Amino acid sequence: MHILVTNDDGVTAPGLLALATALRALGDVSVLAPDRNWSAGGHVKTLDRPLRVKQVRLADGTAAFASDGAPSDCVALALLGYFEKKIDLVAAGINFGANLGHDVTYSGTVTAAMEANIVGVPAVAFSFDVPDNFVGDPDFGGAAACARQIIEQVIARGLPTGVLLSVNVPFLPSAEIKGFRITRLGLRVYRNRLDRRQDPRGKPYYWIGGDAPTSIPEYGTDVGALADGYVSITPLQLDLTAYPAMESLSQWEFKSNP
Amino acid sequence: MHILVTNDDGVTAPGLLALATALRALGDVSVLAPDRNWSAGGHVKTLDRPLRVKQVRLADGTAAFASDGAPSDCVALALLGYFEKKIDLVAAGINFGANLGHDVTYSGTVTAAMEANIVGVPAVAFSFDVPDNFVGDPDFGGAAACARQIIEQVIARGLPTGVLLSVNVPFLPSAEIKGFRITRLGLRVYRNRLDRRQDPRGKPYYWIGGDAPTSIPEYGTDVGALADGYVSITPLQLDLTAYPAMESLSQWEFKSNP
Repeated sequence: MHILVTNDDGVTAPGLLALATALRALGDVSVLAPDRNWSAGGHVKTLDRPLRVKQVRLADGTAAFASDGAPSDCVALALLGYFEKKIDLVAAGINFGANLGHDVTYSGTVTAAMEANIVGVPAVAFSFDVPDNFVGDPDFGGAAACARQIIEQVIARGLPTGVLLSVNVPFLPSAEIKGFRITRLGLRVYRNRLDRRQDPRGKPYYWIGGDAPTSIPEYGTDVGALADGYVSITPLQLDLTAYPAMESLSQWEFKSNP
Repeated sequence: MHILVTNDDGVTAPGLLALATALRALGDVSVLAPDRNWSAGGHVKTLDRPLRVKQVRLADGTAAFASDGAPSDCVALALLGYFEKKIDLVAAGINFGANLGHDVTYSGTVTAAMEANIVGVPAVAFSFDVPDNFVGDPDFGGAAACARQIIEQVIARGLPTGVLLSVNVPFLPSAEIKGFRITRLGLRVYRNRLDRRQDPRGKPYYWIGGDAPTSIPEYGTDVGALADGYVSITPLQLDLTAYPAMESLSQWEFKSNP
């Protein structure tokens, strides 16, 4: 079992080391991650420029590789053959901060897992619900233990066809985490505001500011599971077709020839 | 009706001008688009740096705005109040090249529409199936006429709750386009390969290369519609939950306390 570990917080992030360390018990782990933070960077395929890869060391002295591409580029590099040995499974994270509801379309952590899913490789994205205003490095130990349990299940049972997982771990001491729930995506409420400012030369610039998103802790959702102290495991698929809308749209009238 | 037109090929792209021109008949059009090409740039929310916006002119002399952010940033800027007048509808494109199947998760054009959808603003992404090896500027006139017909329907009938549209126009003379089909996402087959090269100093670099993706022209899909000479209209939604997988995953066994 050859496991690729990547992330979107960058190769030096402690959440990456915690995940790689926890998964070494389950197979050979290779680390290839961005050389810098790519949070909210979306699903990127870098085709218009070359990518560099350099060998680095994680804080525990183990070898890792850093690329100047996005998280999804790191996955593409690895799955297209950067490592001699075929990749059997991709684990992304552990992200600093939850990825809930619509976050999954922006999240570099989740889109790294999507990149693997598209070419049929099992993939799990892990996120830790560290509060936005937390200072310093949180203890990723409990989240890493959860990740290990989930990857054990993926190895033992496989994933349903076309499905990747997005996992969120509540920000609680390990002993207080109540267990695991299979969830659907919940609802995020984004509270961005546009900050208009002036630079030192009097020219305008704009910053997407405002408050951190809130979420609606409905039972059955990822948001609800975290609020109740459970790890959420949300199965995702990339067929975004809104099937129920197809019938009403078929009532639309067009000139037969545009 | 205040329509925002944006794209991912950059503000100077002829597909943007064709779309803006076609939609001026339906309302006030404001253009805010990236100052450069963002293709395959994914769903981005730029929070860690400020964004600049400058006024430019399109090739027909009309005013437009260019930002150094991603397509989804342009939408966020506009919807958060860059323009004094509220935006009622977002039209993205017309993209040079189709966005089919899994392309929608990478596509800057589609993710621009997603950004509007997330905050409840109706949005349509338009793509024109120009072949990858086409040289020069294709005639976007027929595609723009299709876009106008579709936006007319959106204004008249609205979109189902939570739904955005991804539209693909076949690369045919207008008179040969057979009509419109409501479709689901089809299957793309990506054929990327990893090119390993050496720079002039003998150092390795990597390029995600290979052949253009192919697709399976199944009836009922976006791919199938284009192959048959029809415009495809695919309704998309952002709830990526794989509902059918929830039951099998609930059989997984975990230690109650991680």
